[in-house]
Amino acid sequence: MALPTITAFDWVPDVARGQVRDLRVRWALEEVGQPYAVRYLSQGEQKQPAHRALQPYGQVPTFEDGTLTLFESGAIVLHVAERGALLPDDAAGRAHALEWSFAALNSVEPPIMDHAIATLFEADAPWSAPRLPAIEQRIRERLFDTARRLGDLLMIAVLRILRDDPLLAEQPTLLAYVERGEARPAFARALADQMAGFTGSPPPEIVAWLEQRQQREEIRR
Amino acid sequence: MALPTITAFDWVPDVARGQVRDLRVRWALEEVGQPYAVRYLSQGEQKQPAHRALQPYGQVPTFEDGTLTLFESGAIVLHVAERGALLPDDAAGRAHALEWSFAALNSVEPPIMDHAIATLFEADAPWSAPRLPAIEQRIRERLFDTARRLGDLLMIAVLRILRDDPLLAEQPTLLAYVERGEARPAFARALADQMAGFTGSPPPEIVAWLEQRQQREEIRR
Repeated sequence: MALPTITAFDWVPDVARGQVRDLRVRWALEEVGQPYAVRYLSQGEQKQPAHRALQPYGQVPTFEDGTLTLFESGAIVLHVAERGALLPDDAAGRAHALEWSFAALNSVEPPIMDHAIATLFEADAPWSAPRLPAIEQRIRERLFDTARRLGDLLMIAVLRILRDDPLLAEQPTLLAYVERGEARPAFARALADQMAGFTGSPPPEIVAWLEQRQQREEIRR
Repeated sequence: MALPTITAFDWVPDVARGQVRDLRVRWALEEVGQPYAVRYLSQGEQKQPAHRALQPYGQVPTFEDGTLTLFESGAIVLHVAERGALLPDDAAGRAHALEWSFAALNSVEPPIMDHAIATLFEADAPWSAPRLPAIEQRIRERLFDTARRLGDLLMIAVLRILRDDPLLAEQPTLLAYVERGEARPAFARALADQMAGFTGSPPPEIVAWLEQRQQREEIRR
């Protein structure tokens, strides 16, 4: 029988390697011991009609298993967990699994992604630096509240976007929780496999942008 | 038998009325015909330990049904839908329901909330106006992609945050989709009930802030 197939990128900037969302799906597949295949996309391919038919927003990952095609890493992780008998059998237990998945992706991740936009994608924009204190305060509140009631795989995957940020180090409980998650063999395999997949090259417009950025940084020094 | 009980606010600023997330849960409960009770919180009460024991982030809604307590409107909506036999029986059908719920709350809502922060909560901050074009572009892409593959109750609930914004009007398919959702009797009952619950008063610090804001606007005129 054919293996379930996920999609991932063959190139992303260094700073995104180990964070692209196929990692969450790889981790879940490793936890349940489900072998899988990966179809790698080069940059730009994700916005083409062939991939958009699987993923309306032109992103990765997707999941294909026989006639079933899924997008949204949250939904894929929960589907893999259910298939792998990782979810509780009773309605209340399943509802609690959903609760923490949504907490990770709808309560905790949005301010963390806002932080990523302000410090990475729009780092050069004049409005990014002045916004940071307010964003950091929103993250700090979410982390403080999360530290008291810990969640699941998706929560760890979201929190580790802040892996080397003082915002996470301020919460030793959470840092230890992320470290325990990262110490799991299934996570290590998933991360190693994501990293091994970056065999591609950046598209020309990104090469130009990276060169510009590097020149600007040299001028600053 | 005791009714399931949700929590909601007895006061929020006018602009948030009809958008507070208990509406999503009320709508799902109306769709499945499940009667429910509401415990109203005054502003400030949501951050007290009693409520935080139910909702770690000090927000509404929560859902209590016998021994089951849930937070995160996404998880509550899906639990209500499952209990009310609104979700498909097969694993693939349930996975697709999850897919669109996560698409609404993790792919479409974050830029929309970013827009709400820039135009409402941080409207006076000097960085908000210059950020708007980039935020609007992110929303525009998400809406364009969503228009081709429509979702569910949670997607409509997220899109209608932009109900009177030109960003939504630019996508006639989506606007019609939101209008079809809002035309459902279950939605109308849920909205009317949320609005009827605002019988409380704002806390003193908000009264002061609203007065300051009004004075500033009068000066501008």
